[in-house]
Amino acid sequence: MNNLSNENTKNQKEKNNRPMQNKKRTGTLENKLAPGLKISFLGGVGEVGKNMTVLEYGKDIIVIDAGLTFPTEDMPGIDIIIPDMNYLLINKDRIKGVIITHGHEDHIGAVPYLLQNINVPIYGSRLTCALIENKLKEHKKIKAKLISVKPRTNIKLGCFNVEFIKVTHSIGGAMAFAITTPAGVYFHTGDFKVDYTPIDHEPMDLPRLSELSKKGVLLLTSDSTNAERPGFSISEAKVGKAIDSIFSQYKQKRIIVATFASNIYRVQQILNIAEKYGRKIAFSGRSMVNVCETASKLGDLKFNRENVIDISSVNKYDDKEICILSTGTQGEARSALVRMSEGDFNKVEIGDNDLIIFSSSAIPGNERAINHVVNALYKKGAEVIYESLAEVHTSGHANQEELKTMLAMLKPKFFVPVHGEFRHLKAHAFLAEEMGIEKRNILIPDLGDQITVTKNTIAKTGVVPSGSLLVDGIGVSEVGSNILRDRMQLSEEGVCVVVITISALSGALTSKPDIISRGFIYKNDETNIIEEAKNVVINTISQADFKEQDWGLIKSNIRKSLTSFFAREVKCRPVVIPVILETK
Amino acid sequence: MNNLSNENTKNQKEKNNRPMQNKKRTGTLENKLAPGLKISFLGGVGEVGKNMTVLEYGKDIIVIDAGLTFPTEDMPGIDIIIPDMNYLLINKDRIKGVIITHGHEDHIGAVPYLLQNINVPIYGSRLTCALIENKLKEHKKIKAKLISVKPRTNIKLGCFNVEFIKVTHSIGGAMAFAITTPAGVYFHTGDFKVDYTPIDHEPMDLPRLSELSKKGVLLLTSDSTNAERPGFSISEAKVGKAIDSIFSQYKQKRIIVATFASNIYRVQQILNIAEKYGRKIAFSGRSMVNVCETASKLGDLKFNRENVIDISSVNKYDDKEICILSTGTQGEARSALVRMSEGDFNKVEIGDNDLIIFSSSAIPGNERAINHVVNALYKKGAEVIYESLAEVHTSGHANQEELKTMLAMLKPKFFVPVHGEFRHLKAHAFLAEEMGIEKRNILIPDLGDQITVTKNTIAKTGVVPSGSLLVDGIGVSEVGSNILRDRMQLSEEGVCVVVITISALSGALTSKPDIISRGFIYKNDETNIIEEAKNVVINTISQADFKEQDWGLIKSNIRKSLTSFFAREVKCRPVVIPVILETK
Repeated sequence: MNNLSNENTKNQKEKNNRPMQNKKRTGTLENKLAPGLKISFLGGVGEVGKNMTVLEYGKDIIVIDAGLTFPTEDMPGIDIIIPDMNYLLINKDRIKGVIITHGHEDHIGAVPYLLQNINVPIYGSRLTCALIENKLKEHKKIKAKLISVKPRTNIKLGCFNVEFIKVTHSIGGAMAFAITTPAGVYFHTGDFKVDYTPIDHEPMDLPRLSELSKKGVLLLTSDSTNAERPGFSISEAKVGKAIDSIFSQYKQKRIIVATFASNIYRVQQILNIAEKYGRKIAFSGRSMVNVCETASKLGDLKFNRENVIDISSVNKYDDKEICILSTGTQGEARSALVRMSEGDFNKVEIGDNDLIIFSSSAIPGNERAINHVVNALYKKGAEVIYESLAEVHTSGHANQEELKTMLAMLKPKFFVPVHGEFRHLKAHAFLAEEMGIEKRNILIPDLGDQITVTKNTIAKTGVVPSGSLLVDGIGVSEVGSNILRDRMQLSEEGVCVVVITISALSGALTSKPDIISRGFIYKNDETNIIEEAKNVVINTISQADFKEQDWGLIKSNIRKSLTSFFAREVKCRPVVIPVILETK
Repeated sequence: MNNLSNENTKNQKEKNNRPMQNKKRTGTLENKLAPGLKISFLGGVGEVGKNMTVLEYGKDIIVIDAGLTFPTEDMPGIDIIIPDMNYLLINKDRIKGVIITHGHEDHIGAVPYLLQNINVPIYGSRLTCALIENKLKEHKKIKAKLISVKPRTNIKLGCFNVEFIKVTHSIGGAMAFAITTPAGVYFHTGDFKVDYTPIDHEPMDLPRLSELSKKGVLLLTSDSTNAERPGFSISEAKVGKAIDSIFSQYKQKRIIVATFASNIYRVQQILNIAEKYGRKIAFSGRSMVNVCETASKLGDLKFNRENVIDISSVNKYDDKEICILSTGTQGEARSALVRMSEGDFNKVEIGDNDLIIFSSSAIPGNERAINHVVNALYKKGAEVIYESLAEVHTSGHANQEELKTMLAMLKPKFFVPVHGEFRHLKAHAFLAEEMGIEKRNILIPDLGDQITVTKNTIAKTGVVPSGSLLVDGIGVSEVGSNILRDRMQLSEEGVCVVVITISALSGALTSKPDIISRGFIYKNDETNIIEEAKNVVINTISQADFKEQDWGLIKSNIRKSLTSFFAREVKCRPVVIPVILETK
């Protein structure tokens, strides 16, 4: 993590077209001592994912969340993306702690990378800490100090007093933070929805919000994911009813429910329904097994262990006696569900007595992969039910009326929409205006922005190092933008290696050039094109001045002449790699 | 087209897991002489796009449509995909003509590639022929015989009598075909919806369907794209009303409407609305300009030419006097709209007095790109309206109740759902069953299937060569699956070239190996890894038996040892290219 790729960070900034030069670079002593609460956004604004917010007052720093995001198609070979944490590294001695809202990957996924470089305690709910602990098992060398905190409990971190407040979301143990700072109370919602009938019978702590409001809330940052959706989101309980109704209609079929493992409320409901209809449960998929094990140990998930069977035993039972709970809702390449759909999962063979329920929605970008699985399941004769056919899924994020509830309860002086793309932040800002918050008291942040809030003011006051770190492989190697550019060109156009042997004495070619290519197209006659390309190389070399023996220049000329030759002849621009060998 | 890549075709078949060995390979004389109407599906079944259906009776063949489809993320560098047409090449002398339902790319996009190899007349409506003619301008060497046919007109092609019947769709000049064959009447809907209030005031020719029904329809193949959607699709006229209402609310802003150029009904409505509100029209995007020019010449698009200005003149007018009609609804990389959103289109600078209407929907797979444009437009201060916010778009395909209308009007004996993924075909088959068609009279085809229909029977009777041809560059070079595999590996893992010079006399290395890499990651210390890799190569060579001088074997050993070295050390599997040079 010490050799963070600045190139990449720079690239990200250029992409965002941000006028860096107009903002004050922070980090100076003057800046540190300026009064007010400073908040820097290292992730989660102008994007969905890799949430990370940095709070400063005087010398003290706390960090909210350390999440990851997943790569897009233009990042071949990249596994995950985490925030550029250089700003934290520069200020590592000032960090009092990291507080985590909940255990989803976009909030905890970067914790191992953070801990690799900064030894700092991590605070979260019991389930959040357990999920982080699971995650750290894959990174054995990391020592972590994980402290679990109960709702309505306070922790003191430097000059910050952080109160954990229960919210409803699509995972257990989700918390908002009411942070008392010398400037006033700052409320950070984390991801939330307002569910009045949650499965754990513990609704959001609205009474506590009301008390905070009475004392006065200086600043609210709130989840904008669904700020474009009108009305209220469906309650998790209603999803259970829809699934129950499907079980009651399909009594003879084997039922496979695919859902997100971390949504233990959903899992709890499906376990209850399966038991109600006399079906054995088999967990399928590593994360499903892990999360259910963890949540069950903590008592967050309750089920009759006698009712659970191993996935390898399902064929010993009648179809109507089985409910399989599986991962793979996003069509992930090697997930159990995808392997079932491809007939490549020997424990479960899909046939026309199977019903598959997708209790999930598509994460943007995964539509095609999911579509592929649904078609494959249909082809095997199975029936498939998904979100657009029945209310078998609900989002964990607040719709507009719920966002208004939050704004109405807290009545903050200043408002900053977070967790969303620009369009979502903009829609959320518009809602806040409708709710009577003055336009000048609302601020839409950009990635890397630092804002300063005092009792009477809010303003963008600087910009901190920020960007994306692309992580490849299971190690923590970072991929620079130059490597990514090479990969994209390699994938679109292929590669061409030219090997030339030159006499060190005469500067003449000692044999015809050798050309090797991969991933690259020939119209009709491969041999002819390669022979012509060799002649292009010979011509280029014959024009070079060998007395100067400027291999760099010769290579560059070969690259140029071959690139234009291939562009003209085969409409391709392969990566050309010239190799020159001297012989005596 | 003569060197079609069989590998690729084979690959496609393996993907579909079709039991090829269980079906009879057609093409034998016995088969040709067997009685009945034969229909082969070269595209458009089990997939959306590259529609192509082949009809045979006795010695005569006609082809319906020749479409393309667009590549998915796992096909880097590929521009378009067309059907494998080997079956047509084998039988080229029997083909009497190609009949085209309408001018969308998924129905006409492969026409140039078909004509390159087979000289055959093409029949379509006037607009369809004009759009094909436009397309052929890019392929100068191709001679085409294009014959435009009016609705309710018959053409005789061998033993087939083809009647053109007007249908409503999201493009002008869309036709269904009622084809009288010696076996009976075959009705092919093409893409359609049942719009009772179309913009050209010419609804679908339902009276003619009724007459055909009286005579008896043997077989119906019908568009399944929206077979999962309940109810009726929105009429095109209603979309116009929604757009009109937006124009009436935003009288002061400049309005940019992005839509599909080929939807001349949509374009006509926007032109009318712009004129009504006193706005000048500027066309933006090459296909928008071309299609409007073509349709206007034919009289299919009517507008006051004085009301149209060049895109470079928009800044001479007040914002409220301008309506820009643009392409780029799918977030296409170099489209005018995307360049506007990036501030890279000098003729139109987006600001906070701009309203952009996306009168379109996302084609699956384009969600992220579209999202990116919407965010960029918001960031520039513009307001954006899209399908989920207002009824500014409707699909051109029939929903369930419209599909039922078609089934109810024609009352076919046999039914084959086409144009859709397997899930859509399945849903459509289910509708037909609900409408009273016997299950054994319904057949869901797979890509490459040949079915035979007689007066009393329908059955899958064979399989013909089929698959995808991947077209790269503006030429017609085909990409084999091995090249695609190389490209994927190159893009995910990068490339590593190893150059070794060996003494031809002693078989010993004359110098240390040289290693060049691209698109490939080093953990921390690039130099160390490369030095270690060189030692791996030296060790591998020292173990080889040079007396045999089996360069192939040595290369293969180097590839193996380096691949496992990189996998172990940097968790990467680059394409390893060993180059061996002999020196004297």
